[in-house]
Amino acid sequence: MSVNVYDVAYELEKSVRESNDYKELKSLYEELNADSEAKQLFDRFRTLQLELQQKQMMGQEISEEEVQQAQQTVAIVQQNEKIAKLMEAEQRMSMLISELNKIIMKPLEEIYGNPEEQ
Amino acid sequence: MSVNVYDVAYELEKSVRESNDYKELKSLYEELNADSEAKQLFDRFRTLQLELQQKQMMGQEISEEEVQQAQQTVAIVQQNEKIAKLMEAEQRMSMLISELNKIIMKPLEEIYGNPEEQ
Ligand SMILES: [Ca+2]
Ligand SMILES: [Ca+2]
Repeated sequence: MSVNVYDVAYELEKSVRESNDYKELKSLYEELNADSEAKQLFDRFRTLQLELQQKQMMGQEISEEEVQQAQQTVAIVQQNEKIAKLMEAEQRMSMLISELNKIIMKPLEEIYGNPEEQ
Repeated sequence: MSVNVYDVAYELEKSVRESNDYKELKSLYEELNADSEAKQLFDRFRTLQLELQQKQMMGQEISEEEVQQAQQTVAIVQQNEKIAKLMEAEQRMSMLISELNKIIMKPLEEIYGNPEEQ
């Protein structure tokens, strides 16, 4: 009898939760939420980012002006140390999650082949 | 010291590989590949499906005729028992993978909140 897949998935959930990357992300996010000024700046940035992503997904054109506005906002938010640290932690967490997904998808790659290699 | 996240991910990979859902998918896929007639039919269906998905993602219109052609192809492939069984197994595997992803993403949901609940 093989191990229950869900049991192992819950173990993985637990180990993500106990990882340093996760703990740091969580504490940086709580710090940001406690700083209303930084929080507002960050929310504005996230909204702008989401709007641009949605436009891109819908195949809508993004104007020169919008690109510049986005770049300016990135420059401003990155000067805020709390936000800059949070964004680094988010990037690390997102890399970890994407690596975990790759590992879990390996058995399927063996059936269908890796599209990137074809 | 917490457990290494990657070690647990590789355990999950192993348990996916040893699951009945995975073993069945793999053997059904091998059976299909050994049947050139069914394989051709299935490949044609997959190509058509991919084309329609890409059109949809690009925001391009899908004609009435294309929808009908796709529905006819689905009806034809589902009459092939090997393909019908494989497609059911693929659906089960895809549900399993999406449930595993949900479990792994739970810690992040706790930080950011569940978008579906907002
Ligand atoms: Ca402040
Ligand atoms: Ca045949």
